[in-house]
Amino acid sequence: MSIDINCDLGESYGRFTVGDDAAIMPYLSSCNVACGFHGGDPSTIQKTIELAISNGVQIGAHPSYPDLLGFGRNRMDIGYKQLKDLLVYQIAALKGMTESAGGKLVHVKPHGALYNTMSENLEVARCVIEAVTSISKDLYLVGPAGRPWIELLENDHILHVQEIFADRNYNDDLTLVSRSLPNALIELVSERVDHVNRMVINAHVLTTTGRENPIKGDTICIHGDHPMAVQTALRLKESLESHGVEIKSYA
Amino acid sequence: MSIDINCDLGESYGRFTVGDDAAIMPYLSSCNVACGFHGGDPSTIQKTIELAISNGVQIGAHPSYPDLLGFGRNRMDIGYKQLKDLLVYQIAALKGMTESAGGKLVHVKPHGALYNTMSENLEVARCVIEAVTSISKDLYLVGPAGRPWIELLENDHILHVQEIFADRNYNDDLTLVSRSLPNALIELVSERVDHVNRMVINAHVLTTTGRENPIKGDTICIHGDHPMAVQTALRLKESLESHGVEIKSYA
Amino acid sequence: MSIDINCDLGESYGRFTVGDDAAIMPYLSSCNVACGFHGGDPSTIQKTIELAISNGVQIGAHPSYPDLLGFGRNRMDIGYKQLKDLLVYQIAALKGMTESAGGKLVHVKPHGALYNTMSENLEVARCVIEAVTSISKDLYLVGPAGRPWIELLENDHILHVQEIFADRNYNDDLTLVSRSLPNALIELVSERVDHVNRMVINAHVLTTTGRENPIKGDTICIHGDHPMAVQTALRLKESLESHGVEIKSYA
Amino acid sequence: MSIDINCDLGESYGRFTVGDDAAIMPYLSSCNVACGFHGGDPSTIQKTIELAISNGVQIGAHPSYPDLLGFGRNRMDIGYKQLKDLLVYQIAALKGMTESAGGKLVHVKPHGALYNTMSENLEVARCVIEAVTSISKDLYLVGPAGRPWIELLENDHILHVQEIFADRNYNDDLTLVSRSLPNALIELVSERVDHVNRMVINAHVLTTTGRENPIKGDTICIHGDHPMAVQTALRLKESLESHGVEIKSYA
Repeated sequence: MSIDINCDLGESYGRFTVGDDAAIMPYLSSCNVACGFHGGDPSTIQKTIELAISNGVQIGAHPSYPDLLGFGRNRMDIGYKQLKDLLVYQIAALKGMTESAGGKLVHVKPHGALYNTMSENLEVARCVIEAVTSISKDLYLVGPAGRPWIELLENDHILHVQEIFADRNYNDDLTLVSRSLPNALIELVSERVDHVNRMVINAHVLTTTGRENPIKGDTICIHGDHPMAVQTALRLKESLESHGVEIKSYA
Repeated sequence: MSIDINCDLGESYGRFTVGDDAAIMPYLSSCNVACGFHGGDPSTIQKTIELAISNGVQIGAHPSYPDLLGFGRNRMDIGYKQLKDLLVYQIAALKGMTESAGGKLVHVKPHGALYNTMSENLEVARCVIEAVTSISKDLYLVGPAGRPWIELLENDHILHVQEIFADRNYNDDLTLVSRSLPNALIELVSERVDHVNRMVINAHVLTTTGRENPIKGDTICIHGDHPMAVQTALRLKESLESHGVEIKSYA
Repeated sequence: MSIDINCDLGESYGRFTVGDDAAIMPYLSSCNVACGFHGGDPSTIQKTIELAISNGVQIGAHPSYPDLLGFGRNRMDIGYKQLKDLLVYQIAALKGMTESAGGKLVHVKPHGALYNTMSENLEVARCVIEAVTSISKDLYLVGPAGRPWIELLENDHILHVQEIFADRNYNDDLTLVSRSLPNALIELVSERVDHVNRMVINAHVLTTTGRENPIKGDTICIHGDHPMAVQTALRLKESLESHGVEIKSYA
Repeated sequence: MSIDINCDLGESYGRFTVGDDAAIMPYLSSCNVACGFHGGDPSTIQKTIELAISNGVQIGAHPSYPDLLGFGRNRMDIGYKQLKDLLVYQIAALKGMTESAGGKLVHVKPHGALYNTMSENLEVARCVIEAVTSISKDLYLVGPAGRPWIELLENDHILHVQEIFADRNYNDDLTLVSRSLPNALIELVSERVDHVNRMVINAHVLTTTGRENPIKGDTICIHGDHPMAVQTALRLKESLESHGVEIKSYA
């Protein structure tokens, strides 16, 4: 039994620093690299790719709505064709930079508001799928576990993995509790470990109504900008390994 | 005997329109597509690539300093490493988008102030070369005919072509007359045709001091934003073909 | 009897040119100057202000969502506080630049998607009002005629004027027919003149269902990027004056 | 005897955080607020202005070259007219936002590469002066102590103050030692205190060649992004006050 641990990296922009990529990299099996539209200038991307390669961490693209000011967290009303082009551009840039550094782009995970929109709006999900497969049919698409976008992917035989969140509470329909609500986040590292163990080992999640709903996760997301990010990664890895779960990427 | 005719295309940005790419495309054998940093949003790039493919026109990347406000025409004091990363990002994006559309990226031509700086500053030239070859050793680098950057390329056996300008006067050292001077531009289409014929057929250029200096051009640049751009392309093609020169790309 | 004719100007960005401001300026009594967030770099703004002053045309700010790529036409999900700050910044910049050139800022008209959102969403309308009045209680707010935002303004005794559109068809509730529908635009200049005369002189509008609904307009909007913009302005002015309506600003 | 202590604040951009403005504000008598072109989105500016007002700290504008990616630290080759417009826009925005919050804009201090260029290139200095005075003749211009730009200001009777740096070593001509050299920065807080005391109380500076050159400072700059910034401010204030020097703004 094995599972992947991923983190969003390379989100700094010029002299604006976000997170501590070098500190968390050793605990990951995959990483999602910002592509310049919510963070991630070319030099930051380059440095992150080199860091991932030297740590043997799988590299993915983390494209976003074009929204540097809002860090990609504002929904934008962008048409299908334009959104697809925005995504192809970002994925292409990251793929070419990764290959130029001697690495390989393996997956794509949409960022922020785009990730959330994809999990609710099947037209946006289809747009993301089209963008990813137009670049390569060998790329994995990463999205939220147990949500409708998966049916699209399974019907079309698209490579994909389901993501679960170490620090987020779940509603009954497996959507994440909105960040505007007080119980959105799981703050304690020990509770995060329990939360993940339940999802990975027991294959169910304790929702906000107290139900134990089935969930299947292929990759665990850790948010790198949290002060306890490194410790969360470390403790999760230890606990999962002690239960016989190997940390490794899916590809 | 053959020569290439190229034009900078895809420089619109969202609803800000530059040039009439569809009108001039039929007269070109290659085009240089903006990469988003001086113009060229992803949807414009995508449309331009599709237009080039359907017209059988060779596709190149046209990377720039990051300067949307100045259209890439202001020199910027950017360090070697950062400039290289900026270029790799742009070329990678264009290569991936071209391949995703079923085409092939063949060349790279720096834009505006970066092009000028490369032709004068060998460190910048070396930076451009490193960026291009880190993406692929099969890409041609396009730059100004008869200038020192060529020696670098020849020494390192880098694919390259020399560019001559249909609408620009030349100094004795084969630099272009500065746009700040009154005789920078050749406005009349008939004079542009004579100017190009002299360079292509006789292999010399009439400089501003009246000298006939030797020059060797592999590709002719036409500026697409000039009102007479299409007519210049048409007349050049006719005149060169009547002298037995075929218009076709070098690759 | 008098009415104002306004146009959105100063929307160029660096070397990306939009419209022909100098050609249409003589036919206007007021203009709305872009503030840099959807178009309008500082030099374009400066030039537009000087042009307005020399033509005796009233100057207003035309703030937008921060969306250069989408020309401010994509709705963005921006929180109340942040939106207010974005607006105060833009209006402040335009007010200071106008005063520095010896002019006076008289009104504010939101741009594009922000204008539409304000006319439907009273929370956004309130945010706009707060931003405008925090700069000065002497500024007029310009918005769509006959829509709910007016009640807010009347209740709070905020200076405001109602805008009617020369080239847009109206639904029964006085919303504009969506640009996604075929009958959104009135293309013929003669029909635009009839449309405006009906609204200004008869104080009603012929809606898409054939009803004659009452409407009250204080200012007529002409879109400057339409090829017939100058002729529309000229013909409207002539026709209104022949009916005894003077073209002049409301302030 | 009195002197001002200033710091560059409000340089965060959206979710990209720079410095800890709230921590250092209590130790300052004036602050320079970023205007959006190298950092400082509208909400950050608004928050910084409110913080300054509630702490009784004098507010200035801190305009920059348009260079978010380079944090305004890359020199840009921008023409006189365009640079002036860029500055007027930024100063106007900050003035209007400050007044809207109930405060008063007192000074202008150019940022980063623009500050350095102004101290060497009198044409750029004149452009800055023109921009500032076109907004108001009551604004102080802040620049480097003992450099040629001061003559321009004195000749034209422009309000200005001379700035000295707590953490930077000086060459004989009172330029700062380039950041590319190892002795550019003074790292120890105690050495910064000695350095400033010498300049403020003895009116001379110990240059890198060991000379004691005369210098006159009206305001001391502390860099807020240094980890010891708050302690530097605290210790400087204590030491200067123990020597009978009051910390207060000049206006």
